[in-house]
Amino acid sequence: MRSERSADTGYSANPLDRLAAQRDSAESFAAWRAAPTARTILVAGDVPILRNTGNGLDAFFDFAAAERIGTAQETVFLGTDDRGPVFGVLIDTLEPETLQGRDDVAALDLRSLATQGLLDPATLGIYAEGKSLLDWHRRHGFCARCGERTTMGAAGWKRECAGCGAQHFPRPDPVAIMLVVKGDRCVMGRQARFLPGIYSCLAGFIEPGETMEDAVRRELFEESGIRTGKVRYLASQPWPFPSSLMIGCIAEALTEELVVDYDELEDCRWFTREDVKHMLAGTHAAGFSCPPPVAIAHHLLRAWAHDGETP
Amino acid sequence: MRSERSADTGYSANPLDRLAAQRDSAESFAAWRAAPTARTILVAGDVPILRNTGNGLDAFFDFAAAERIGTAQETVFLGTDDRGPVFGVLIDTLEPETLQGRDDVAALDLRSLATQGLLDPATLGIYAEGKSLLDWHRRHGFCARCGERTTMGAAGWKRECAGCGAQHFPRPDPVAIMLVVKGDRCVMGRQARFLPGIYSCLAGFIEPGETMEDAVRRELFEESGIRTGKVRYLASQPWPFPSSLMIGCIAEALTEELVVDYDELEDCRWFTREDVKHMLAGTHAAGFSCPPPVAIAHHLLRAWAHDGETP
Repeated sequence: MRSERSADTGYSANPLDRLAAQRDSAESFAAWRAAPTARTILVAGDVPILRNTGNGLDAFFDFAAAERIGTAQETVFLGTDDRGPVFGVLIDTLEPETLQGRDDVAALDLRSLATQGLLDPATLGIYAEGKSLLDWHRRHGFCARCGERTTMGAAGWKRECAGCGAQHFPRPDPVAIMLVVKGDRCVMGRQARFLPGIYSCLAGFIEPGETMEDAVRRELFEESGIRTGKVRYLASQPWPFPSSLMIGCIAEALTEELVVDYDELEDCRWFTREDVKHMLAGTHAAGFSCPPPVAIAHHLLRAWAHDGETP
Repeated sequence: MRSERSADTGYSANPLDRLAAQRDSAESFAAWRAAPTARTILVAGDVPILRNTGNGLDAFFDFAAAERIGTAQETVFLGTDDRGPVFGVLIDTLEPETLQGRDDVAALDLRSLATQGLLDPATLGIYAEGKSLLDWHRRHGFCARCGERTTMGAAGWKRECAGCGAQHFPRPDPVAIMLVVKGDRCVMGRQARFLPGIYSCLAGFIEPGETMEDAVRRELFEESGIRTGKVRYLASQPWPFPSSLMIGCIAEALTEELVVDYDELEDCRWFTREDVKHMLAGTHAAGFSCPPPVAIAHHLLRAWAHDGETP
C-alpha cells in the first residue's frame, strides 16, 4: 500500500494507527494508559532517551521505568500497533551527570539515531511523530492569542486556553524542497553548517497565499537567481527538526545564471548528472557528496540521476 | 510559467514579488511605505474593506484613505507589482454602524468576493496572502513559549518576543484534500454546514510525523472507512480561512464499504462519473452539486471526471 517514493525517506515508516477519532475521550486515554502492553518513548527536552539492553538500543520504556528517569511534563498518545498503545513522554532537559554511571540508558540525538541506523525504520517513524509533538508542547505552554497558560487536551493533540477559549493544534510547517534541472545538469547549494563537501537541494518554507509550485519558483529565484518553469511533485517527508513537512519537487530551470543569496547559502553551483551519481555513491573525485538516504534530498537526486524523472 | 493545475484554483493567482530577502531591512520597509505608488488592502478583524468606486469595487487604498477608516494595528508588506509596493493593514473589527451611510466603502467577506467574481483573480491572490498574514498577527500577539507580548518584525513576516527571544513565523497549515476513486466511481461527503445538496472531497489536516500520502490514507479511513492504495498529487491551493495550504490528491480505493464518521460528516456516499459531470455542470437530476471553481475540490473532480486523471 505504501509504494510511493515518500515511503523511501527517513522517518516516514510509521506503523501506528493514531485512532484520531478517539483522542477526545478521556476514557479512551485512561484505558490506553492503563493497558499492560502500554509503552512509551522518552524525550528529555528534545533529546531521545533510550534503553541500552546490552544487545543494542530499545526506544520503548514501560511507564514505571520512564518515571525513574524524570518527571513527566506531558504524556501524549501516539497510536497503537500490534503490540499495544504507544505514548510519548516529555521530561526536563537532563543534566549530563544524570545519566553518568548508568549503562542501562543512553541519550542520543535523533539525527544520529537515524543516520547511524541505530533504530529500525518503524521506530524512527514513531520517534518523528513523538518528538515533533512533544517539542510542540514544550514550545506552546502559553496562548498566542491572550498570553494565558494553556493545558494539553485530546490525548496530546491540542492545547486549550481557559482564558480566551482558543484551541491550538500541532501543525507541521510545510517546506518546499526542490531539485532544479536543465537537461543533464542540476543546481545544488550548501549552507555553512553542512559538513565539508556536502551539497543539497535548495529549500524554504512555503508562505501564506502561495501554491506549492509558486513557492518552489519563489525560493529558487531568491536563493539562486534561477527562473523556473514547470514544477512537479515527487515525494514528501515528515522532518522532526522541529516539525516540518518536506514537500519534494523537481523543477525546470529556464535560466542558467546563478545569483546566489549568500545570507542563506555558502555556495551554489551547477552539477552534471555524472557528478550527482558519484556524489550519491560517495565516489566523487573532488570529494563532493550529498545528503544520506534519511533525507528526502537524496531521493530527489536519485529520482533524477538514476530513475530518469523530469519536471 | 504557471501551467500547472494549481494555477486554476481560487486565490492562487498572486502576481506579487515578495522580495523576501529585503524584509529584514527597516530601510527597505520605510522606502516601500513612503513610495508615492504604495497602496494597501484593508482588513477589519477578518473582513475585507473595499472602496466602492461607483463602477465596482477596488481593493486598494492609499494610506491616508485607509487611516480615515480605522487605526492600523499592523501594517505588513505583501510585495510589489508593476504598479508599486503593496501592503496589508489590519484595523479593529468595525461596528456595523461605522460604515452606515457611506456608499464609498463596502465590507464583504472574502468568500463572497471570490465566489461572486467581484475581484479579479490577481487581487484575490493578493487578498489571500494579506488576509492570512494579518489574521495570523491578530491571533499571535503573545509568545506561545513564555506568554509575553510579541512585536512584529521583518515587514510583517515574523513576530519577536523580547521576553525569551523566541521568533514566530506565519506558516500555513497543510491540509490533505483527496478524491478517492474506484474505476468509474468516487466518494464524496458533506458537512452539516454545507449548502443543501453540496458534496465535496474529503479533507483533513496533515499531522506531525506523516507523509502527504499517509495523511491521505489516514483521513480517508477515519472519515469514510475506506482503505486506500496509491495516492497521487494533483494540485495545491492557498486557502485563507484562516491560513491553510490545501494539497490535493487523487487516491485509489481498495475497499468499498463506507463507515462514516458522523462527527465530521453529515453524509458520505459513492457517486458515478456521470453524477460528477452533472454536479460540476449544475445539472444533476437529484439536485446534488459540488463546490465552485474557486475551491480546489472542483478541480480535483474535474481532473478525474473530464481529464481522465487516475491515482
